[in-house]
Amino acid sequence: MMQRIYFDNAATTSVDEAVLATMMEALRELSGNPSSIYAEGRKARAAIEGARKLVAHHVNASIGEIFFTSGGTESSNMALKGAVRDLGVQRIISSRTEHHCVLHSLDALEAQGVQVDFVTQDEKGIIQLDHLESLLQAGDAKTLVSLMHANNEIGTMIDLGTVGQLCQQYGAYFHTDTVQTIGYFPIDLAQTPISFLTGSAHKFHGPKGCGFIYINQENQLKPFIDGGSQERNMRGGTENTAGILGLAKALDLAYSHLEERAAHIRDVRDYFRDQLLANFEDIEFNGDPFGASHYKVLSVAFPPSPQAELLLFNLDVAGISVSGGSACSSGADAGSHVLNALKKDSPRQTIRFSFSHHNTREEVDRVIAELQKILKKRPSLTQ
Amino acid sequence: MMQRIYFDNAATTSVDEAVLATMMEALRELSGNPSSIYAEGRKARAAIEGARKLVAHHVNASIGEIFFTSGGTESSNMALKGAVRDLGVQRIISSRTEHHCVLHSLDALEAQGVQVDFVTQDEKGIIQLDHLESLLQAGDAKTLVSLMHANNEIGTMIDLGTVGQLCQQYGAYFHTDTVQTIGYFPIDLAQTPISFLTGSAHKFHGPKGCGFIYINQENQLKPFIDGGSQERNMRGGTENTAGILGLAKALDLAYSHLEERAAHIRDVRDYFRDQLLANFEDIEFNGDPFGASHYKVLSVAFPPSPQAELLLFNLDVAGISVSGGSACSSGADAGSHVLNALKKDSPRQTIRFSFSHHNTREEVDRVIAELQKILKKRPSLTQ
Repeated sequence: MMQRIYFDNAATTSVDEAVLATMMEALRELSGNPSSIYAEGRKARAAIEGARKLVAHHVNASIGEIFFTSGGTESSNMALKGAVRDLGVQRIISSRTEHHCVLHSLDALEAQGVQVDFVTQDEKGIIQLDHLESLLQAGDAKTLVSLMHANNEIGTMIDLGTVGQLCQQYGAYFHTDTVQTIGYFPIDLAQTPISFLTGSAHKFHGPKGCGFIYINQENQLKPFIDGGSQERNMRGGTENTAGILGLAKALDLAYSHLEERAAHIRDVRDYFRDQLLANFEDIEFNGDPFGASHYKVLSVAFPPSPQAELLLFNLDVAGISVSGGSACSSGADAGSHVLNALKKDSPRQTIRFSFSHHNTREEVDRVIAELQKILKKRPSLTQ
Repeated sequence: MMQRIYFDNAATTSVDEAVLATMMEALRELSGNPSSIYAEGRKARAAIEGARKLVAHHVNASIGEIFFTSGGTESSNMALKGAVRDLGVQRIISSRTEHHCVLHSLDALEAQGVQVDFVTQDEKGIIQLDHLESLLQAGDAKTLVSLMHANNEIGTMIDLGTVGQLCQQYGAYFHTDTVQTIGYFPIDLAQTPISFLTGSAHKFHGPKGCGFIYINQENQLKPFIDGGSQERNMRGGTENTAGILGLAKALDLAYSHLEERAAHIRDVRDYFRDQLLANFEDIEFNGDPFGASHYKVLSVAFPPSPQAELLLFNLDVAGISVSGGSACSSGADAGSHVLNALKKDSPRQTIRFSFSHHNTREEVDRVIAELQKILKKRPSLTQ
């Protein structure tokens, strides 16, 4: 059987072999409870603190600013809900294209009386900074801005420094969901005014079920999950030692190989773009993929046709894994909230292709060939 | 070097080799996002639903009543905070010997105006059922009772059926933390009136970082962690596939070998008790270890002496891992909140010994010999 092609690396990534080895060793050799004071506990504790140091190093944060969680979704819940509960935040400025972990947390907070304002974006998803500034200028309510670094569906990015400085200028907290960018872009937290940052291991070839939150040391939150004194009293629950070590190993690999992986991914994506444009008519791209955008994502809007409607299904049958939008909402039938927010009435069929350093030009050739078969096929009873 | 002896299986347990194999296979072969609709996603989804079915089977619940979480602490937070937010609970009856994930959640809820009442316990930690009933009779506030099945430090148990029926009789919700008992005692949720139940994989030879919550289908909670539509819209966040499969595998092994493991653990514990009583004077036990108690725990109160004060430290040096109380609070210097609640002024030195099916009588002999060396040693400058 022909090997499947996985072009959905924004949904999740395969776990690196070196990460697997690290996790397996942890599951076998670091089985003590990291809170126990005898040898097995101290060994697990030391390994976790080593992982924290490594993560802090790669984002230029202090060790005391990194807290491990069960994933990006928990981290974003913790930041938003904690800022309201513990820091007196009464208003949150965000965008309609954030991940559901932010948008649904905002729903919950709005029901508690928090004011939620959405910043204007253009059709490419680009945040209108003058509108953000006018929102920041208005009113006296203690404000938090929550904007993702790169959108998971279309790749459109913000400049963390610019937004951070704007927030700082107006005395607002700044949370950013960097789930798609940590390990793919250098992030220097000592140089960038960010209050809270969300990261998730499984997006950079680490394990599912482990993430982290950066909390700038000037901000004191209480735990989101109450319990024991783990994570410096910031998150109850016995630590997921293997997941934490896997996260740190994967992040270390990602930043150690950042330039070569990025160059490879860009090459595959650009080749895919060129082949698409050369072989198909009337191809459009969502977002701003060759502007300020994540290099791993290419969101393609195919012209409407009966064949395009079955594209996802037929690509899957052909052994090619891609998605219509984010994975998290693919169970629901509501379509993409991102595309609905940006270009509501487009009849085009969007497919998100997203790449990793494991993908190749040869895979692109095969995908182009399959797309040709599917899209150029005349409808027939046997299809 | 002599193999260390691990007698702290209430803090955490080693991961079974078969569980490791399941997890490794999941990390390699089930790397798709379970929410993705193509082959890799469907395969991961099917595996997770299979795990859910297995867990539901072993506790005789419906599949739709089992939700996977990041661990017992998250599950208990979800039950208590969700019941207050979504079910109108205004009062919680609990005990002073619950795990910190319950007690600290109660602190947070009390700060929000929830009334918290503690039921009376005797010196062994046994819940006074007539006091529980009088609390349930008093007032009209919608009430939740939260009582752990077996105490993690001293092993004292409640009868789930008796407490559940009492709650049912007075129209109260019932949450039970079964972190120490799931996989060790049969639990039949179809026959026992329980609203919410908390479980954690790493206590029954599964991985850290994964647990579950049972939510009786009559009770509708909203998510504690807002995000995507995972876990039937009850918990946002990409599923920890490997952790979930590891949990289910470990639970399956635990219930498949329940009787032989339980008999083995009881034998080791009873032998340890007999050897303690035969070799040392004035030994007492905390809780009611040979009454309604968890068979894996033996909390020993040694008579006060200079040697007893350094017991934990010296046992560790001798290669023996045991704990003073729970692991979760061993980082803090506050001592055991359980023992403080039950026998505040005891000058005795408590050590919790807790066993698994991997422990042996030979290990007991070595521990007894080390205890003799340490406790009967005359103080000297070189100690």
